[in-house]
Amino acid sequence: MVVPRLIERKRDGEALEPGAWRALIHAYAAGQVPDYQMAAMAMAVVFRGMSPDELNELVDAMLSSGERLDFSGYSLPRVDKHSIGGVGDKTSLLLAPMLACCGVAVPMISGRGLGHTGGTLDKLEAIPGFRTQLSLVEARAQLDRLGVVMLGQTPELVPADRKLYALRDVTGTVESVPLIAASIMSKKLAEDLTGLVLDIKMGNGAFLTDPVLSRRLAETMIGIGEARGCRTVCLMTAMDRPLGRACGNALETAEAIRGLMGQGPPDLMEVTYALGVEMLLVGGVTAERREARRRLEDLVSSGEALDKLEHLVAAQGGDSRVVRDPDRLPRAPVIESVRAPDDDTVIEIDPRAIGHAIIRLGGGRAKADDVVDPAVGFVIPVKPGDRVSAGQLVGTVHARDAAGAEAGVAALRRAIRFGERARAWPLISHRVTAEGVVTL
Amino acid sequence: MVVPRLIERKRDGEALEPGAWRALIHAYAAGQVPDYQMAAMAMAVVFRGMSPDELNELVDAMLSSGERLDFSGYSLPRVDKHSIGGVGDKTSLLLAPMLACCGVAVPMISGRGLGHTGGTLDKLEAIPGFRTQLSLVEARAQLDRLGVVMLGQTPELVPADRKLYALRDVTGTVESVPLIAASIMSKKLAEDLTGLVLDIKMGNGAFLTDPVLSRRLAETMIGIGEARGCRTVCLMTAMDRPLGRACGNALETAEAIRGLMGQGPPDLMEVTYALGVEMLLVGGVTAERREARRRLEDLVSSGEALDKLEHLVAAQGGDSRVVRDPDRLPRAPVIESVRAPDDDTVIEIDPRAIGHAIIRLGGGRAKADDVVDPAVGFVIPVKPGDRVSAGQLVGTVHARDAAGAEAGVAALRRAIRFGERARAWPLISHRVTAEGVVTL
Repeated sequence: MVVPRLIERKRDGEALEPGAWRALIHAYAAGQVPDYQMAAMAMAVVFRGMSPDELNELVDAMLSSGERLDFSGYSLPRVDKHSIGGVGDKTSLLLAPMLACCGVAVPMISGRGLGHTGGTLDKLEAIPGFRTQLSLVEARAQLDRLGVVMLGQTPELVPADRKLYALRDVTGTVESVPLIAASIMSKKLAEDLTGLVLDIKMGNGAFLTDPVLSRRLAETMIGIGEARGCRTVCLMTAMDRPLGRACGNALETAEAIRGLMGQGPPDLMEVTYALGVEMLLVGGVTAERREARRRLEDLVSSGEALDKLEHLVAAQGGDSRVVRDPDRLPRAPVIESVRAPDDDTVIEIDPRAIGHAIIRLGGGRAKADDVVDPAVGFVIPVKPGDRVSAGQLVGTVHARDAAGAEAGVAALRRAIRFGERARAWPLISHRVTAEGVVTL
Repeated sequence: MVVPRLIERKRDGEALEPGAWRALIHAYAAGQVPDYQMAAMAMAVVFRGMSPDELNELVDAMLSSGERLDFSGYSLPRVDKHSIGGVGDKTSLLLAPMLACCGVAVPMISGRGLGHTGGTLDKLEAIPGFRTQLSLVEARAQLDRLGVVMLGQTPELVPADRKLYALRDVTGTVESVPLIAASIMSKKLAEDLTGLVLDIKMGNGAFLTDPVLSRRLAETMIGIGEARGCRTVCLMTAMDRPLGRACGNALETAEAIRGLMGQGPPDLMEVTYALGVEMLLVGGVTAERREARRRLEDLVSSGEALDKLEHLVAAQGGDSRVVRDPDRLPRAPVIESVRAPDDDTVIEIDPRAIGHAIIRLGGGRAKADDVVDPAVGFVIPVKPGDRVSAGQLVGTVHARDAAGAEAGVAALRRAIRFGERARAWPLISHRVTAEGVVTL
């Protein structure tokens, strides 16, 4: 393998010969191919893409670079969901306990927030004591006992992806459909899943803002999953405004808990139920969407899902009293209100601006090793299309100090726009499966 | 400067803002920007190119990364020539002494062969004792004394280009017109030239085989030179067959010496004179092509150019007896002949195949730190279009041992094709200047 020749082939638009991606990824993971060659290759892939055969080989090479969960002989279906970025998206915190109540094992390996998007691990860690760094052995033991575990990527899981993703992050090579798809799917397939539900966000707050690329990403990931026996379904959901009202780690965790208490914002609950229905279907629990939905709603009204969350928090070392009393979560010392200046209509709440404002409040990451402040963030009770009166509360800023609050207020004022007519993505616009696309 | 944002801008087809390239190159040369980010940026440039403003800033940043020759107050014009790769091209060895005889100072900084192309330094070093690693101070002193110096790139000269070129060489990012142009021109402009003549090769043996890219490269380099007060002219010459008969370091040096004795092959002499005429014109020695040509021919017939070469070799520590007796150059122990199998017409002599065969004989470099055998190579007395009789000598292989000779014979047999009709590039097809292109 002469790496510069491989880079040149890809640069010139040719597919690499069978075996080349496997050799390249294994040598890269072993430190035998330097970062500068992999960075040039990644940039060539950004421009030239990958053939289906190349992509399959890349995914398999990443998968085989580390350990995997192994459920051979296991009786329950294993289902996970994965969302491609977003602001205010706390659906994982609701779905993991819900699904575990339905006889579905949920081995959920999540990420941290980076850039304007939040991450499930940061939300969980807003719960005092909650441990997300579990070994695969610990995770497997908890899954057998409780049916659900929520953890971060372990060092032994897909190490080639860890290394490649860190490189792409600093070389402008994140935005490649095949590389994104391979990165996500190699991690998810290492969970040995029966089924996977993807939530691809559409709109300005999404990781990918181009709908054409989003569609291609959905289809690419579905192809990868289905080819490996993992039933994979994707919902396209709106991220042209935050999901729910709370944005910021502890605020979102509290909103998720209240969602399981039956007090969640309608948009959050709608997306949660829609994803949950797909998870039950890909897990083979039922083939009936209506029945699946009713089961999930019953888990909330009965309090069963909340009980499961309480057990989950306790099992992972967290203070499980927060599940009955979310006011115990970390709270920011300074809270400022933002009110509508006039009688008006909200036409836009820019999720990307909100996400960046959370970073400036200390609640997000500009760099991967930034420490996050769990308490800060925004609560925005209005939605695009809402009529508001002069003086009506449109948002609160939760800040560490007065200067943060002032900056947060200014950012929130800029992020909320008023005007004539709101244009918004449908909350859930499409379902994409191996069979095709359905507009919802 | 946030380097990933710069890479993303370039990746997305935007020009970087003023000052960005300067900051990037200076930080890279200082080791503050890692190779992997520069590799990704170089690949993005391969796909997206650079605006004229970006390119000018890149050239200036590379130039200012190191020392330069300084001829302020110097009375003579300084002229150099640069060829973009080739096989059998020994014109520099003829031109440097010729021009120095005409009151033009020739501070010629050359390169080594890499891949299938030869390099002037390797040809010079075939002369026992010849030193090409001179400091800029030594070079300047010799230039003042002799009017000509031939040396390799010094560590202090354009260090940013040294570093960037080494990176591009192993990351598939050599083939970019602006990066090639910036690399060559920053080195040439560091010589503080009055005029520069470029020889861009056309055909299979050329570094760039696409005529459209070759033309764009010529125009780009001319733009860079002229913008900095260096009169820059380019000739497009044929490299669909080797230039002259000898290919291989000592063999080529001998042919160049014999060229100065008036015994050079016609194609070699024609290209040499054509380049020399342009060098005299850009140096302002004369405005008359015919006069310039006559002066150069007279330098050969009078032996004056050969005398100058003798002084040059002696000044740089070489055994100057080779200039009167080129048989003193290193000779390969095994020489094998290749003869025409039938009465036939030569239609092709593949220069790229010849170049690669020289590497296999040990006379070229696959990697930058390979040691070259000066003695090995080929002498090919025929040209495309020549009629040959069965048994007529069409080439000799000069090898270190019998195995090398056998491989060389096989390679030469493959490289020379016979057939009906030869198609060849015109030996000198175009002259490109700031004013436009003239077909010759």
